[in-house]
Amino acid sequence: MQFSKADIKARKRAAEIIHKAFMKVVNKVLKGEEPELTLPKRTLQNTVWDERMKILRLGEETLTRKFLDINEAKMFMKTTLMASIIYEALLNDEYPTIRDLYYRGKHTIVYVDHKGRKREENTWDDQKESDAVITDVEVFTGLLREEMLILSKEKGKVVGRMRIRSGDDVIDLSKMGHGAYAIEPTPDLIEFIDVDAEFVLVIEKDAVFQQLHRIKFWDRYKCLLVTSSGQPDRATRRFVRRLNEELGLPVYILTDADPYGWYIYSVFRSGSINLSYESERLATPNAKFLGVSMSDIFEKNWLGPKERKNVIIKAKETDIKRAKEMQRYDWFKSSQKWMHELDLFLKKKSKLEIEALAVKGLRFLSETYIPQKIQTGDWIE
Amino acid sequence: MQFSKADIKARKRAAEIIHKAFMKVVNKVLKGEEPELTLPKRTLQNTVWDERMKILRLGEETLTRKFLDINEAKMFMKTTLMASIIYEALLNDEYPTIRDLYYRGKHTIVYVDHKGRKREENTWDDQKESDAVITDVEVFTGLLREEMLILSKEKGKVVGRMRIRSGDDVIDLSKMGHGAYAIEPTPDLIEFIDVDAEFVLVIEKDAVFQQLHRIKFWDRYKCLLVTSSGQPDRATRRFVRRLNEELGLPVYILTDADPYGWYIYSVFRSGSINLSYESERLATPNAKFLGVSMSDIFEKNWLGPKERKNVIIKAKETDIKRAKEMQRYDWFKSSQKWMHELDLFLKKKSKLEIEALAVKGLRFLSETYIPQKIQTGDWIE
Repeated sequence: MQFSKADIKARKRAAEIIHKAFMKVVNKVLKGEEPELTLPKRTLQNTVWDERMKILRLGEETLTRKFLDINEAKMFMKTTLMASIIYEALLNDEYPTIRDLYYRGKHTIVYVDHKGRKREENTWDDQKESDAVITDVEVFTGLLREEMLILSKEKGKVVGRMRIRSGDDVIDLSKMGHGAYAIEPTPDLIEFIDVDAEFVLVIEKDAVFQQLHRIKFWDRYKCLLVTSSGQPDRATRRFVRRLNEELGLPVYILTDADPYGWYIYSVFRSGSINLSYESERLATPNAKFLGVSMSDIFEKNWLGPKERKNVIIKAKETDIKRAKEMQRYDWFKSSQKWMHELDLFLKKKSKLEIEALAVKGLRFLSETYIPQKIQTGDWIE
Repeated sequence: MQFSKADIKARKRAAEIIHKAFMKVVNKVLKGEEPELTLPKRTLQNTVWDERMKILRLGEETLTRKFLDINEAKMFMKTTLMASIIYEALLNDEYPTIRDLYYRGKHTIVYVDHKGRKREENTWDDQKESDAVITDVEVFTGLLREEMLILSKEKGKVVGRMRIRSGDDVIDLSKMGHGAYAIEPTPDLIEFIDVDAEFVLVIEKDAVFQQLHRIKFWDRYKCLLVTSSGQPDRATRRFVRRLNEELGLPVYILTDADPYGWYIYSVFRSGSINLSYESERLATPNAKFLGVSMSDIFEKNWLGPKERKNVIIKAKETDIKRAKEMQRYDWFKSSQKWMHELDLFLKKKSKLEIEALAVKGLRFLSETYIPQKIQTGDWIE
């Protein structure tokens, strides 16, 4: 089996870091001391909005799992079991998914307790449990699961004026025909080689991405087009962050005008509460929300009154509930413009899909709306 | 704007076919006759299981929509309105999505009736309505929407030993690095150029696809790997069909062992009831179901009794309901093996995910299960 150089290097690095982290535990045992694991607390209370970095991240609180504490022994066992499965997979040149790891580790431990009774204990019962243990291994070692070559479902795509190296291949993202390049699950291993783009346009909707790609929007406006196909997965977020951070490309995000779309922007920009422990590496704090905004619909002249009436959609109860939640989020509260958007949404109780702009003609989005918004700096941060 | 040669040709062809089809209607008007549209009935009653072709397809029944019939005038208007929007988009080098077409045509027609009263009529109110009208245009003209360059969301991916021409680019599907090639929304425009594969392996789950790709399964076993990422979209189905029909490559399909997975196989093989009008071009009637089957789990020795117990999942009520429905489908009924599978499922009331095979080690799927099943012809049709 011929593995890519990038993978061989990544394996070696991850295995070394895991080995080093757990040798501390082993050494305690060898010295006759009680083994323990100290890791950051992954709780809502310990999730903080970092105003300066503009991301959600884990706070300073830690917890210690002691092997000899009856309440913690099982969690200790789970963490070390998962780490050993991941470590073995690295040594054996395997590429597990998180679901594989669940099945690989799922079994019943039979033991005899201090009173001589035969007891049984399951390692874990469902994938939620094992996923949380993978996250423990991530925060304990400081390695993202992607760096440990754990694979996952991916739906992000990219096309545009750039070449990349992935595995041992060089791929020209401007030569994808009518199709696109599906981003790999381990985006840190991508090498950017020939970049001839001036910005990144991220589109929530795959079908709109297809359209802009088909008219070679990326060629005409010298950019990269990315779609997250709905709520972005980790790889798409990390990929976009790297384009911004390492290449200095401005990132513009285009979604439907509804709380679901704005939340997608917010995940790209600041991270999600669930994954706050890795926002520092997945979030793009200076990503700009290009549209569609409430003010685009109701306060600017993109649509005439008749057109607007024809294409706006009545907000659902869930939309309104979500908007009210977002009003309470620190990272929206810190922006007057966002608070105005949410107010306007709750006042109008209306939303709009990107495709509704087709009411102005099918080229309005690509030839007027997007370029004008970028040129005039008409975005929200 | 530089459009690909394939698109320019496709546009010209589709516009001519639409023009010709509707000129018949126009000529009736010019001759002072009543215009009408005759098209196949898209009803469950007119959906037939074609035993010989092994696909679901539309029967012989047709319906006629007359312009001067008060009950049919609105449907007549909708069909001609949609056809004219699509035709204009073709002439204007546009690439609408089905949602664009909904918005583009959505408006209120104001007219004065025979009693002099002002009346209002909406062209259509929701996308379900306009989508059905697009299908009417498809069956009336005999053009799939993809052939009219109507774009849509796509989630199918492919890698393997082949080069293709898409648009004006040549893409080497064996040089995608750790990523993959995202299939275009108009797969009929793809040209297969250098094929060095002996079969096609279609995988329901994107994460399993990522795994097999990462170990270059396609290189070792000389094949193409495709993932549908769940229920397949039209483009993925058409792409797989073309690989089978035009290149003569056998197609093997790998899903979870549950009714949802088997239904995915069935859609690839025979089409879905909703889209029966196009099964003739989207279905792959001789696609083989490689696994995971109920007999793999309970009647063969892939898993030991302890392993099996560890990884099977209790079926849900919805699984059982779906399996019972499938027992009544003609295309399952025509296969003894499938009836046995469904019986066994309903008896055991258990299901299994592909990833559960990781209990045999992370390489079991790629090095043992798949190759052995293919070599020994252990599949279901």
